[in-house]
Amino acid sequence: MPNQNNQILKNTNAQILDEFNASIMFDKELYAQDIRGSIAHSQMLCKQGILTKEEQEAIENGLLQVKDEIESGKFEFSLAFEDIHMAVESRLTEIVGEPGKRLHTARSRNDQVATDFRLYVQDKNESIKEQLKELISVFIDVANKHTTTLIPGMTHLQHAQPLNFGYHMLAYANMFKRDYERFESSYERNNYSPLGSAALAGTPHNIDRFLTSQTLGFISPTANAMDSVSDRDFALEILFNISTSMMHVSRIAEELILWSSYEFQFVRMSDEYATTSSIMPQKKNPDVPELLRGKTGRVYGNLISLFTVMKGLPLAYNKDTQEDKEGVFDSVKTIEISLKILTEVIKTMIVNVDKMEAACKIGHLSATDLADFLVQKQNMPFRTAYYITKDVVSKANSLNKDISELSLDEIRSANDELKDISEDIVMYLDLRNSMNARNSFGGTSTIQTVEQIKVFEQWLKKA
Amino acid sequence: MPNQNNQILKNTNAQILDEFNASIMFDKELYAQDIRGSIAHSQMLCKQGILTKEEQEAIENGLLQVKDEIESGKFEFSLAFEDIHMAVESRLTEIVGEPGKRLHTARSRNDQVATDFRLYVQDKNESIKEQLKELISVFIDVANKHTTTLIPGMTHLQHAQPLNFGYHMLAYANMFKRDYERFESSYERNNYSPLGSAALAGTPHNIDRFLTSQTLGFISPTANAMDSVSDRDFALEILFNISTSMMHVSRIAEELILWSSYEFQFVRMSDEYATTSSIMPQKKNPDVPELLRGKTGRVYGNLISLFTVMKGLPLAYNKDTQEDKEGVFDSVKTIEISLKILTEVIKTMIVNVDKMEAACKIGHLSATDLADFLVQKQNMPFRTAYYITKDVVSKANSLNKDISELSLDEIRSANDELKDISEDIVMYLDLRNSMNARNSFGGTSTIQTVEQIKVFEQWLKKA
Amino acid sequence: MPNQNNQILKNTNAQILDEFNASIMFDKELYAQDIRGSIAHSQMLCKQGILTKEEQEAIENGLLQVKDEIESGKFEFSLAFEDIHMAVESRLTEIVGEPGKRLHTARSRNDQVATDFRLYVQDKNESIKEQLKELISVFIDVANKHTTTLIPGMTHLQHAQPLNFGYHMLAYANMFKRDYERFESSYERNNYSPLGSAALAGTPHNIDRFLTSQTLGFISPTANAMDSVSDRDFALEILFNISTSMMHVSRIAEELILWSSYEFQFVRMSDEYATTSSIMPQKKNPDVPELLRGKTGRVYGNLISLFTVMKGLPLAYNKDTQEDKEGVFDSVKTIEISLKILTEVIKTMIVNVDKMEAACKIGHLSATDLADFLVQKQNMPFRTAYYITKDVVSKANSLNKDISELSLDEIRSANDELKDISEDIVMYLDLRNSMNARNSFGGTSTIQTVEQIKVFEQWLKKA
Amino acid sequence: MPNQNNQILKNTNAQILDEFNASIMFDKELYAQDIRGSIAHSQMLCKQGILTKEEQEAIENGLLQVKDEIESGKFEFSLAFEDIHMAVESRLTEIVGEPGKRLHTARSRNDQVATDFRLYVQDKNESIKEQLKELISVFIDVANKHTTTLIPGMTHLQHAQPLNFGYHMLAYANMFKRDYERFESSYERNNYSPLGSAALAGTPHNIDRFLTSQTLGFISPTANAMDSVSDRDFALEILFNISTSMMHVSRIAEELILWSSYEFQFVRMSDEYATTSSIMPQKKNPDVPELLRGKTGRVYGNLISLFTVMKGLPLAYNKDTQEDKEGVFDSVKTIEISLKILTEVIKTMIVNVDKMEAACKIGHLSATDLADFLVQKQNMPFRTAYYITKDVVSKANSLNKDISELSLDEIRSANDELKDISEDIVMYLDLRNSMNARNSFGGTSTIQTVEQIKVFEQWLKKA
Repeated sequence: MPNQNNQILKNTNAQILDEFNASIMFDKELYAQDIRGSIAHSQMLCKQGILTKEEQEAIENGLLQVKDEIESGKFEFSLAFEDIHMAVESRLTEIVGEPGKRLHTARSRNDQVATDFRLYVQDKNESIKEQLKELISVFIDVANKHTTTLIPGMTHLQHAQPLNFGYHMLAYANMFKRDYERFESSYERNNYSPLGSAALAGTPHNIDRFLTSQTLGFISPTANAMDSVSDRDFALEILFNISTSMMHVSRIAEELILWSSYEFQFVRMSDEYATTSSIMPQKKNPDVPELLRGKTGRVYGNLISLFTVMKGLPLAYNKDTQEDKEGVFDSVKTIEISLKILTEVIKTMIVNVDKMEAACKIGHLSATDLADFLVQKQNMPFRTAYYITKDVVSKANSLNKDISELSLDEIRSANDELKDISEDIVMYLDLRNSMNARNSFGGTSTIQTVEQIKVFEQWLKKA
Repeated sequence: MPNQNNQILKNTNAQILDEFNASIMFDKELYAQDIRGSIAHSQMLCKQGILTKEEQEAIENGLLQVKDEIESGKFEFSLAFEDIHMAVESRLTEIVGEPGKRLHTARSRNDQVATDFRLYVQDKNESIKEQLKELISVFIDVANKHTTTLIPGMTHLQHAQPLNFGYHMLAYANMFKRDYERFESSYERNNYSPLGSAALAGTPHNIDRFLTSQTLGFISPTANAMDSVSDRDFALEILFNISTSMMHVSRIAEELILWSSYEFQFVRMSDEYATTSSIMPQKKNPDVPELLRGKTGRVYGNLISLFTVMKGLPLAYNKDTQEDKEGVFDSVKTIEISLKILTEVIKTMIVNVDKMEAACKIGHLSATDLADFLVQKQNMPFRTAYYITKDVVSKANSLNKDISELSLDEIRSANDELKDISEDIVMYLDLRNSMNARNSFGGTSTIQTVEQIKVFEQWLKKA
Repeated sequence: MPNQNNQILKNTNAQILDEFNASIMFDKELYAQDIRGSIAHSQMLCKQGILTKEEQEAIENGLLQVKDEIESGKFEFSLAFEDIHMAVESRLTEIVGEPGKRLHTARSRNDQVATDFRLYVQDKNESIKEQLKELISVFIDVANKHTTTLIPGMTHLQHAQPLNFGYHMLAYANMFKRDYERFESSYERNNYSPLGSAALAGTPHNIDRFLTSQTLGFISPTANAMDSVSDRDFALEILFNISTSMMHVSRIAEELILWSSYEFQFVRMSDEYATTSSIMPQKKNPDVPELLRGKTGRVYGNLISLFTVMKGLPLAYNKDTQEDKEGVFDSVKTIEISLKILTEVIKTMIVNVDKMEAACKIGHLSATDLADFLVQKQNMPFRTAYYITKDVVSKANSLNKDISELSLDEIRSANDELKDISEDIVMYLDLRNSMNARNSFGGTSTIQTVEQIKVFEQWLKKA
Repeated sequence: MPNQNNQILKNTNAQILDEFNASIMFDKELYAQDIRGSIAHSQMLCKQGILTKEEQEAIENGLLQVKDEIESGKFEFSLAFEDIHMAVESRLTEIVGEPGKRLHTARSRNDQVATDFRLYVQDKNESIKEQLKELISVFIDVANKHTTTLIPGMTHLQHAQPLNFGYHMLAYANMFKRDYERFESSYERNNYSPLGSAALAGTPHNIDRFLTSQTLGFISPTANAMDSVSDRDFALEILFNISTSMMHVSRIAEELILWSSYEFQFVRMSDEYATTSSIMPQKKNPDVPELLRGKTGRVYGNLISLFTVMKGLPLAYNKDTQEDKEGVFDSVKTIEISLKILTEVIKTMIVNVDKMEAACKIGHLSATDLADFLVQKQNMPFRTAYYITKDVVSKANSLNKDISELSLDEIRSANDELKDISEDIVMYLDLRNSMNARNSFGGTSTIQTVEQIKVFEQWLKKA
């Protein structure tokens, strides 16, 4: 590998400048969208009498040939072309001659790049939605298997109340469902065609922007050409949506790392998704969730990068916006591989039901149930019940027991107010009963959990 | 002013800790939402038989009294209360006694704060939409007055093609309309009630979350309590929407600063919105647009702050999320005052029509028209026309004229291919004709501009 | 509390504009630096014959009176003054009359604010260094007590090798020492006086910038006035240094949260630094370290905010830079209170030696020692030793033992290559021996740990 | 070009996982540092008797062969190697057999990667310093040519006071000199060797970390192994230093864009550094400075990315930190090419002296001189002089003249206080005199400018 950076310093000024200005080395990612846009443009030019039928056919066939050459690896990308648009047009003209030179009629690189990039982002909005659905369906599968598996629900990383593990999985399904909705909403809000905006002001040619818009799957053309060539809101939206979704990924990754530790042992990564140490032969490391967590950094960075680029740019097009693409490509690639990997990790993780359930017996998880019992059955104000419960917790601690393991007598002796408490209380403090008691809408009871799963299953069918 | 920071270092540990933990000094911003949420909660508890009618009435009246005390400035906020929720509940209990202690039944601070904060964000989504509409209507007013005023359309801050100034204003109207749509979409996507999620798992009490949801103007309760108490997507969304909108503000601000310079002189800030120098008595500075541009920084920062906080948090509630509010309050306040100020600045700016039109005669703005003429009338390929046009530009430069000022003979002599060009070409190169020639949908012609204004006027009536 | 935001929308335009433009409500933080700078300026003006001795004395006494008024809370800050500089100058002129008006000779608000803000940042560079020293000395104290306490050293949150807990504390001492060095370096690099740069180009008055520089504790005046009024590198540096330091805080905070969980139980926060739940009476939450971790968000955001503000600003002063201060004030306040709190938390935490040492027996922490033994004593290549060690780990797992608990026979039977291994190996696998074996420079052995503590103690004396 | 992203989705899980985990495709950038580190390590192992002389020589020669293979493009990088360290070690072992397996004795991938990455960052700290020196020397050259060329000094993008253009260039030289100092300071602060820290706790082998430290050009070994394998402060520092420097680049870029506009015309990019439009044949666009300005975005993003990654990571090594390198490589490459390009742009730009000087006659640039005259010669308080000057400005405006063009009579008639003003005033208002009057240290007078240039020339010789 020639060291790229030292290389730079040895090149001639002209080479360095080409490298600095050119976008071809990254915007080639847009080749398919560029060709799709050009075909639509040529068809419209033909219908409007600007190109003849023969010219249009030559162009369309030529473009399809260029596409083939690119996809089969025959196409030589070179800095000399500067960008993907020039690369495709040059090759087209080599193939078809004169008509190739007519293709750029009534458009500019400004609306061309705006169209290509928007088509790319729209394609990705759609494919990421599909990946989110797959991930959600895996969470639903795991949830379905664990609607009665107890796990200590935590706040502040402290045991709080008993949950079922399926319910915990559904919390993530809900996050990723919101992500899905955001990608969907961005798709719809930005589904307008900038093609035909030309440099910044439209064109004197008699074009039909509604036709190209329709051919390309947009709702309609954008309303103002000047805005259209400088608008990158759609790119900021996908960067934000990816950042939010990767933030959710980082949260489940954090839990997987915790749960894989010797201290927790709630889950084990399948061997495929745990790696070994180069020096410590006994170790199995949760590298995969660690990387998933770490990748939040790059997608946050990409978002702030584009926001920085766009700040204070006067209208209309400025070359600064050439910096809009690499970050989007990187964030898209990051979320694609991350969702794919996370889906497999969740699908293949081994859940240690015994450890989860054993952990529920630490931390007096049913203490709130005692307080709630006092409120509901004894009509005590909540704040009073709260303080009485503290006494029972102290009693349990002094006996080295969990509150769920106290006998009726032990409970009754903890505080004067409890001396005649109904024997039902023992049942109330049982951990599984405690979990099932939280039967309010959206609560953790098995009944509610199963209900939430059903709603998701219906949504997955329709979405 | 006692120096706050030095003060910190002199306090006792207990005082410092209170200050560190407490959120009361900023979350008091939520007092109205907190009281609204508590009233809805008490009404539901009453309907479900958990509070008596008398208790509920005492609570509701007590809460309204607390609200009065706060709004009239009688309420003493103190660090001792820790947060607005405890502050309100404590005062309520002072006023109404026992029933006050029953209010917290079947809820937790976790769902309470999630509800209050979401209500606040939803209120702001709505009010910012209104401000955006006002700003857009001012852009439309200015556009309406200037549909025939020529201004040099720029790309790369270089004169490119002649536009009308109304059209330029519409580019901004379109940006702020997209902002409007984003706030609207976030409002709808997040309009679900977390109230009743309790600590993280729901509650054993027989509550009706659909009732509180309806009372508070939400569509329905959220689906999963664990997700609900830790979800801050709605806060990230408003921070993103504000950042994007302030980015648009920074772009018009940049143009106002440029246009106010001696070099441009396209507009003048009304005296009210320009300030003087403490040392240079001759100066009038565009401080207001400079500050508008600078304020992009803080809203970007607030977005990245919350993203950082949320990264890698395990479920469910963690105290880290207490850091969610100040940034949102600051960004909301920033956009509210910025939109208000920008609306006035645009409304009162003095447009220097003569300077704008004179500037159009620099830079051969109608050069593309010549190329387009050759394509349309002479059926020349665009790339060929492009190079011929370059010759005419050279000719004009050699005569020290703008291309729009060339005579027919001068044009004909610039390149052999032009020697018989139709005399129409002179008309085509006229600047106003050039502007009006761009009559494609979304183009800059006066006809298209007027059409775009009409669409906005209809939208403003409906939105 | 009148709702500040709604308030804004009800104010007259003039009031809103005042609020938008004015910085007095936050830059009053600079009052002491402003007065210090003005006194130095007046003394220099007097020495240069620009002020009479009487004028200078009147000014100096007047400024000291203003300072008293501010510190005793008598001073009324009002939006009408716009900024702290005008507020002080106005009040001075009220007190001393004519001479007050002469104070602004040969300076501008541009160099005045640059000076005040730099003095503030330099003061804080110094005081934060002091706080870091205090924190480091607490880490050293804890380290000193625990140079033989075993704790499982982790990589990937998996048990890796046995450490002593003192050594683990020293890792943090090293981080905060680097932070100290960064604040120190920034202090030195930026210790130059912008005073006398005037608006952007210096002044025709016969001033002595070296004198004011010296009076104010700077090394010398800055070299170029135009750069000086627009330079905010010193502010970016303190924001970066604070961000890096708070990142270190977030790492120890994360460990404190983990260590306080039921699963780890390595440490317990002193009661003062753990809080209770409003609904779960049994809980003690590590709110303080959670907040410490969360506060990383705001300081990162403040850094990116100022970077955004500064991007692409033309020379020299622009009003955008008024946005430089609030973020710095907020980050400074955040790190001051965070270091103070963290110092107390570390000082008062209860270390659970038994739990730490028991945890070392899980995960075959001395496995690497076996590999190293084979390399050192048997002259085996490391990669070969690595694979043999894996077999011993498997053996231990099959016996449900930790590798440190295996008998000589059990070791010998794990792999053919080990069948004659020296009986020393048992000693090598002992956990405490394993810790002490890592006796390379910077290693975890008690000897090395004690050595590292000594180096720190000497540094603390000198720094 | 096979579409990389779609590709991902079609791969098998195992391939995807390899791609996800592997760092080889970017960390191959570190090949030279990795080999340098390994050679130093092998030499030390030999001196300590851990390797024989023959083994060490085999290893060293083998490593040099691997280096040759890489630099000549013969080396096949494959995902199978996972990272550059394994790639080099595997190939070494293929070449030299057994001794290759002994190389990893007494080190771990954790300290190896920490060492390689730090060596890379240190190399870049040095080379970027050299580039900054070159850029500064170009600014000094331009400054030297323009110490008497007038340019309107601006604040708020409004004409403020007359400067010489050389002085303006020196403002930038000062910024980049501070950048130089920051890279230098980071180099020194981080010049410590992590090699020998092993996994996290040091090693039981009898190594000499001082020797490897010395061989590799470090001051000494790092103090604590646990800190050393998880410390990425040096990477954050270079990301911050690059961000600050690129922010400075964005400021000169902004000015070049403004100055190249038709409205300013102060400078013209050499033809090499301006590009043409695909549709507007008359245009020359300042693409290069626009890209320089835009590239601020990516380096800010890379900084926030790594800060995000590091937030809240427990000790010691976590896989998240694998995300530390790509951003650093990208920022380094960005600043290297940007400084190179900017140096050429400044060297080759054409300065339009006439336009600059003509522009000085707009905006009453010498108004402050009148105020200063009244203070100095008439002993008027500054605030009074300020208001009188305003009247003279009004007078000039009413005569459609610049204040520098007023006759003595016109000045005297502007305000009663001026009716006897000395005739010297006319000379004071002359623009060149005004520039030269600002002769305070660091001021814009030609004398001061020449002085500042001398200081820089001396610094360039020594630095």
